[in-house]
Amino acid sequence: MVSIGFIGLGNMGRPMARNLLTGGHVVKGFDLEPAKLRAAESDGVIRADSVAAAVTDADIVISMLPAGQHVREVYLSADGVLGSAKAGALLIDSSTIDVATARNVAAAAAKAGFEMLDAPVSGGVAGAEAGSLTFMVGGNDGASRRATPVLAVMGRAIIHAGPSGSGQAAKICNNMILGITMIGVAEAFALADRLGLERQKLFDVASKSSGQCWALTSYCPVPGPVPASPANRGYAPGFAASMMLKDLRLAQEAAAAFGAATPLGAEATALYTLFSNSGRENTDFSGIFEMIVGK
Amino acid sequence: MVSIGFIGLGNMGRPMARNLLTGGHVVKGFDLEPAKLRAAESDGVIRADSVAAAVTDADIVISMLPAGQHVREVYLSADGVLGSAKAGALLIDSSTIDVATARNVAAAAAKAGFEMLDAPVSGGVAGAEAGSLTFMVGGNDGASRRATPVLAVMGRAIIHAGPSGSGQAAKICNNMILGITMIGVAEAFALADRLGLERQKLFDVASKSSGQCWALTSYCPVPGPVPASPANRGYAPGFAASMMLKDLRLAQEAAAAFGAATPLGAEATALYTLFSNSGRENTDFSGIFEMIVGK
Amino acid sequence: MVSIGFIGLGNMGRPMARNLLTGGHVVKGFDLEPAKLRAAESDGVIRADSVAAAVTDADIVISMLPAGQHVREVYLSADGVLGSAKAGALLIDSSTIDVATARNVAAAAAKAGFEMLDAPVSGGVAGAEAGSLTFMVGGNDGASRRATPVLAVMGRAIIHAGPSGSGQAAKICNNMILGITMIGVAEAFALADRLGLERQKLFDVASKSSGQCWALTSYCPVPGPVPASPANRGYAPGFAASMMLKDLRLAQEAAAAFGAATPLGAEATALYTLFSNSGRENTDFSGIFEMIVGK
Amino acid sequence: MVSIGFIGLGNMGRPMARNLLTGGHVVKGFDLEPAKLRAAESDGVIRADSVAAAVTDADIVISMLPAGQHVREVYLSADGVLGSAKAGALLIDSSTIDVATARNVAAAAAKAGFEMLDAPVSGGVAGAEAGSLTFMVGGNDGASRRATPVLAVMGRAIIHAGPSGSGQAAKICNNMILGITMIGVAEAFALADRLGLERQKLFDVASKSSGQCWALTSYCPVPGPVPASPANRGYAPGFAASMMLKDLRLAQEAAAAFGAATPLGAEATALYTLFSNSGRENTDFSGIFEMIVGK
Repeated sequence: MVSIGFIGLGNMGRPMARNLLTGGHVVKGFDLEPAKLRAAESDGVIRADSVAAAVTDADIVISMLPAGQHVREVYLSADGVLGSAKAGALLIDSSTIDVATARNVAAAAAKAGFEMLDAPVSGGVAGAEAGSLTFMVGGNDGASRRATPVLAVMGRAIIHAGPSGSGQAAKICNNMILGITMIGVAEAFALADRLGLERQKLFDVASKSSGQCWALTSYCPVPGPVPASPANRGYAPGFAASMMLKDLRLAQEAAAAFGAATPLGAEATALYTLFSNSGRENTDFSGIFEMIVGK
Repeated sequence: MVSIGFIGLGNMGRPMARNLLTGGHVVKGFDLEPAKLRAAESDGVIRADSVAAAVTDADIVISMLPAGQHVREVYLSADGVLGSAKAGALLIDSSTIDVATARNVAAAAAKAGFEMLDAPVSGGVAGAEAGSLTFMVGGNDGASRRATPVLAVMGRAIIHAGPSGSGQAAKICNNMILGITMIGVAEAFALADRLGLERQKLFDVASKSSGQCWALTSYCPVPGPVPASPANRGYAPGFAASMMLKDLRLAQEAAAAFGAATPLGAEATALYTLFSNSGRENTDFSGIFEMIVGK
Repeated sequence: MVSIGFIGLGNMGRPMARNLLTGGHVVKGFDLEPAKLRAAESDGVIRADSVAAAVTDADIVISMLPAGQHVREVYLSADGVLGSAKAGALLIDSSTIDVATARNVAAAAAKAGFEMLDAPVSGGVAGAEAGSLTFMVGGNDGASRRATPVLAVMGRAIIHAGPSGSGQAAKICNNMILGITMIGVAEAFALADRLGLERQKLFDVASKSSGQCWALTSYCPVPGPVPASPANRGYAPGFAASMMLKDLRLAQEAAAAFGAATPLGAEATALYTLFSNSGRENTDFSGIFEMIVGK
Repeated sequence: MVSIGFIGLGNMGRPMARNLLTGGHVVKGFDLEPAKLRAAESDGVIRADSVAAAVTDADIVISMLPAGQHVREVYLSADGVLGSAKAGALLIDSSTIDVATARNVAAAAAKAGFEMLDAPVSGGVAGAEAGSLTFMVGGNDGASRRATPVLAVMGRAIIHAGPSGSGQAAKICNNMILGITMIGVAEAFALADRLGLERQKLFDVASKSSGQCWALTSYCPVPGPVPASPANRGYAPGFAASMMLKDLRLAQEAAAAFGAATPLGAEATALYTLFSNSGRENTDFSGIFEMIVGK
C-alpha cells in the first residue's frame, strides 16, 4: 500500500484514481473544480483542499492535467508540489504536454531533491476506466522501476522510453504517425469509393499488404471492416478530433522548437484544424474521413 | 500444363516467366529489346519475334509492361494481342497502369470476345524471383478463378479485388497509403532524433501502439530496428523511389480523373518528386528519411 | 475582313465569335449542341452542320473546347479540321488543355501543312464578352504575328510565350501561382480574424508590402477591401472553383508528366478538390476563404 | 530632440540607433554583447552598462531583440524596463515576436503605468541602414501618434495596425503570404523549366496577369527578370531563409494558439525547415527555388 497524492481528477484522472483505490492504495486528491473533487470523493478518494494538502504526506504524487501551463503551476508555484511534497516522494506527471516543459519541471524537481517522471498515456478514457492504459515513461531507470508497480495498477503496458522528456517525445512521435496514417487511410478509401473499388476489398488487400497500419486494421475509418471502430457508431469517440489535434500541435511545437522538418505532420495538423473548425472537434478523429469525401 | 504467351521480359517479367517454366508450363515470350529476349531464351522461354507470334497459340497471355501506353499498343494495335490471340484465350495484364486504361483495354478485349484481367503485383523483383508476389486481380469471378492456378506459380497471394480495373485501383490505394506512412514514419524518427529520443525506443513504443504500420515494423526507414530493411544496407532497393513515385502519380492521376481529394497523397507525391529530382530515384523509397533530416 | 471557322460556341466561344462579327469578320460556326449553335446563329454566326463545313473555306480556324480529348477529336478525326481546312489556313486553339496534347496536335497540323497556335485565354466569360481577354500564345513567330490582328478583336493583351505548347505552359504556370496565392491570402485573413487583426488593416499592410499579390489587391477573398471582388457578392463567379481546379489539375498533370516538384501546387489542388467536393464547385474560387475558416 | 534608451544593438538595432543619432536624438544604448556595445559607442551611442542604466532617463525606450523570451526578460525582470523607466516614458518594442508575448508584456507595461507599442519592422538590414524600414504598429492611437516622429527617422512607412499585438499579427500574416507566394513562384519556374517555357516569358505573362505578386515582380527567385533580386548574386541575402523560417514559425505558433487553419502556411514552414536543415539557412529565402528544382 502506497500513499498517493493525485492532482487533476477529470475524465482521465478520476478513473485512474479509482483504479489506484481498487489496487489497495490510499489516494488523497485535489482538483480546482469542486464538482470533480466531490465525484472523486464519492469514489473513495480523500478530499484535499489544495495541491499542498494533497501531496504533503504522499509517497508518490501523480498529476493528470490539461496542458503545460497547468503542470508548471501545480509543480512550480509557491504552494505547489515541489514546495509541499515530503522528502523522497516520487513525482509522476501523466499529462500530455510539450517536451520542453516536461524537462524544465523535471529539472526543477531534481534541483529540489525529487525524482520525477513524465509518463503520458495512450488509451483514452476507456483505457483509464479499464485500467488498460499504456504509459510512456521518461526519466531515470531507478525512478521508472520504482513507479512501475503503481502504474501497472492503471495500465497494461509501461514502456521506459529514456531520460526525462522521452515519455512525451515518444507519445507525440507515435501520435503524429497515427494522425498521418489515419488521414492517409481515409484518403485511400475516398479514392477507392470514386474508383468503384469496394471498401471491404481495399481493406482485405491493404490489411495484408504494405499499406497495413493500426489506423486501418484496428480503427478503420469507414463502417464495416472493423466492427469495433467508431465509424460503426457514427464516429462517437473513442479519441476525439480535438485530442488528436492537441497532440499534433504538440508535435509541431516540438518540431519548431527543435528544428525538425515534418511536412506531412504539418499538413495533418492543418487538416485536423480544418475539421475541428468545421464544428466536428468532438467527433472521433477517424471521422475526418467524412471531411475528405466532402461532407 | 498451360501454353502461355508472355509479353515483356524485363526485371519483373523474366523471373515471372522463369517461375512459370519451373511450374511446368510452356512459355513463348516477346520483348522489344533483343537482349532481354535472349536472356529469357537462356532461361528456357521459347523466343517469339513479335507480339502476335508469342500469343497466337497461347491458352493464357500474360503481359508485364512499364506503362499504360505500352499496354494499349500491345493489346490494341493491328498486330496486337486482341487481333492475334486464339479464341478463348485468357488475357492477364500484370503491368501497373492507370485504372482508365486498364478498363478501356479490358472493354476492348471483351468486345473482341476475350476475358481479360488486370492483375498488378506487389513484392518487387525479389518477390518475382522468389515466386512470392501478391496479385491484385480485377475482372469477373470466372476469369479470376481460371487465372488462379497460373498466378499461384508466380505468387503467394492472389486477391480478387472486384470487377475490371479493381486490381489497379487496389494497388494504387494500397501504395498511396504506403507512400504516406513511410514519410510519416520518417518524420517521426527525424523528430525523435531532434528530441533526443532513441530510435529503438520510438520503434519499441510505436510498433506496439497506435502508430504501428508496415512501413515501421516491416520496412523501418532507419538502420537498426528491422535488420532486413534497406536502411541497413545503404538504402539499396528493395523498392526504388522511382517506382514509388510512379505509383503515387498513378494514384494522383486517378484522383484527378475521378474527383477524389487526397491532400496527403498529393504531398507525398511532391516529396518523392523532390527526392527523385535530387538524384536519388534509384535508392530505396525508405531513403526519403535522409531527405527529411536534411541530407 | 477575314473568313473565320469557329468550333465551340459555349460560354466563352459565343461572345468571342460575337466580337469577331463586331470586328467585321465573317464567322461560320459549329457546336455539337444545337441550342448553342442556334444562339450563335442569332448573333450573326453562319451556321455549319459539321466541323468540316465550318472550316472548309476559312482563312483562320479558331476552336474553344472543354478539354484535350475534344481538341484531338475536332482536329485529328477523319472529318476533322486537318482533313477539311483549306491550304494555308491558320489554326488557333484557344482551349485550355494539357501541354502534351497541344504539342501533339500542333505537330500533326504541321505535318499536314498547317501553322497552328495554342492560344489559351484568361479573363473568363466577362473578358470574353468585353473583348478584354489575355491570349497566351504558343507557336512560331510568323503565325503568332499573323494571328494578332484577329486575336486583338477579342482581347486586350496578346503575349507570345514561345514555341508550340508555350501558351498552355504559361497559362497553367500562372494559374498555379494564382491558386496558391489565393489560398495563402485566405489563410492570412483567417489567421488575422483569429488574432483580432482587422481585415482592412491586414489589407492595408500587405497590399503595400512583400505580401502584395493580385489575389489580394485585385481579387480580395474577404468582403470589403476590394469592392469589385466576388467576396462582395456572395462569391458569385467570376472564375468558378471548378475552373480553377481544372487548371490546377492540368498543372499537376504537366508536373507529373515532365517531372517537376510542386508541393504547394499539389496541396492547392487537393484543397480545391475538397472545396469542390463539398458542393461549392460553382462558387467563385476566392470562396475557398470560407472553407479555410470552417464554413 | 528626444532622449532615447535603446536595448539590442545587433545587425538591426545598431543601424537603427545610428539613424536616430543622425536625426538629432540622444541615444543611450545597451547590449549584452560587449563588442556590439562598443561598435554602437563608436557610432555615437552613449554606452550604458545595464538595461536600467540605458532607460532610466529616456523619453522613449526602443528595443530590438531576437525572440519573445528576451523581450520578457528585458521588460519584466526585476531590473528591467518596467522597473527602471521614468514615468511617462513611451515603450516601443520593434522585435518580431509571438503575438501572445507582445500582448502580455504590453499589458504588464500598462499596469505599471506605461504606454507600450509593438512595432516590428520589415525591410531587413538594408532597410535599417537606409532608414527605409516599414513599421507595423500595435497599440493605442495616442501612443502610435506619439511614436511616429521618432519611427519616421528610421523608416519610410509607419502603419498603425490596431490595438496591442496588431503589429506582430500584421507582420506574421504578411510574411506568411510572402513565404507561400515565394514557394509558389519557385514551383511555377521549376515547372516552366521542365515544360520548356522560357523564364523571361513566364515572368512577362505572370507579372501582368493574375499570378502577379511581390515575390515575382520585386524579388524574382530566378536570375534575370528582376536585376536587383538576390537570385542574381548567388542568393546572398537579402532576407535569409532562417529569418523567413522564424516568421513562418511565429505564424504557425499563432495559428495553433488561436485555432486558425493554415494548410499552405504549414507546408511552407515545413519546406523552409527542409531547406534550412539542408545547410542553406543563411542563403536568401528565394534560394528555395534551388531546392524545388532538386539542387
